[in-house]
Amino acid sequence: MKKSAPAHFSIDTLLAERWSPRAFEDRSIEPARLRQLFEAARWAASSYNDQPWFYIVASRDNPAEFQKMLDCLVEFNQAWAKAAPVLAISVARTKFKHDGSVNRHAQHDVGAASASLALQAQSLGLAVHQMAGFDPQRARDTYHIPADHEPMAAMAIGYPGDPAALPDKLREREMSPRSRRPISEFVFAGDWGSVAPFVKHT
Amino acid sequence: MKKSAPAHFSIDTLLAERWSPRAFEDRSIEPARLRQLFEAARWAASSYNDQPWFYIVASRDNPAEFQKMLDCLVEFNQAWAKAAPVLAISVARTKFKHDGSVNRHAQHDVGAASASLALQAQSLGLAVHQMAGFDPQRARDTYHIPADHEPMAAMAIGYPGDPAALPDKLREREMSPRSRRPISEFVFAGDWGSVAPFVKHT
Repeated sequence: MKKSAPAHFSIDTLLAERWSPRAFEDRSIEPARLRQLFEAARWAASSYNDQPWFYIVASRDNPAEFQKMLDCLVEFNQAWAKAAPVLAISVARTKFKHDGSVNRHAQHDVGAASASLALQAQSLGLAVHQMAGFDPQRARDTYHIPADHEPMAAMAIGYPGDPAALPDKLREREMSPRSRRPISEFVFAGDWGSVAPFVKHT
Repeated sequence: MKKSAPAHFSIDTLLAERWSPRAFEDRSIEPARLRQLFEAARWAASSYNDQPWFYIVASRDNPAEFQKMLDCLVEFNQAWAKAAPVLAISVARTKFKHDGSVNRHAQHDVGAASASLALQAQSLGLAVHQMAGFDPQRARDTYHIPADHEPMAAMAIGYPGDPAALPDKLREREMSPRSRRPISEFVFAGDWGSVAPFVKHT
């Protein structure tokens, strides 16, 4: 299923067509494609080029490992994410590698890396659904995530599937149009809340 | 100047060719293109679709506003960013709009939105250089950024220019190859530090 953004101003197809489905095809992801996904994350921008991103990945091809990660998700997400061929958890290293000081952009930069990953997925015909709904402490305990590292988001990765396979409520959400507030609500100039002139032309 | 990522595994051209130059052409950005940049940010993914991103934008076409934002940057960045036609500061709303509770993904999601913005720039022949080197408190005071909102990153936006215009040291950095740690250093499975099997195939 395609679900292109109803954008007010034209944006690159890759960006427009990326979305976060809950229905996945019952199909493994080729290892070569998985490498491409994380290679895309690799080339994201980061403060001091610190690259504070880490990913723990679980494939359904390894049922015990898959279940271990699935157990870190909240129940609502387990219900649909169990059908994805691959799960992952992103982690931010919150102190700089070069001097151990706090990196106030660590989480920001992980967000950038994961966005790149999701766009690379889109480019390969795959899709990524990131989730806030998981238990960071359980992830920390399960995977021995060290201090100064913060579990950020869980994600389901796979080939997008048929929404008909989802329970009623989720199917409705899957089919409903994508929505965002317009840029006039978040692009300012001169002062907070003052809409930038180039936005007003619209 | 093009500076495609020397990727180990092939990634989408848009992702490979995005980089963060310091040399910009002396050329304004068309308002229509600016709208496209922020439209791309608009369609990023976010926790609870909260869309916690804001941008304050200053164009060199308005010298007083441009200087006001330039003054928020550290000196090192002022030296080259003053030649960019547009500056911006990204801001994260750190509490959810729907219930006022802390959004632990606010900064993460701003990182995703800004990555989308930078990729849209790449798609239009523009480039974005994000900077940690600015004074968040000065930005807060200058633009009356409210409590529960965190100034995240400054950015210079423009058409990439000739590195020859940069001072010696910066020109060297501008011409040097891009580098990142390989995915084997940050993609794990089963336990922290245990390289994922699909990575090892390489």
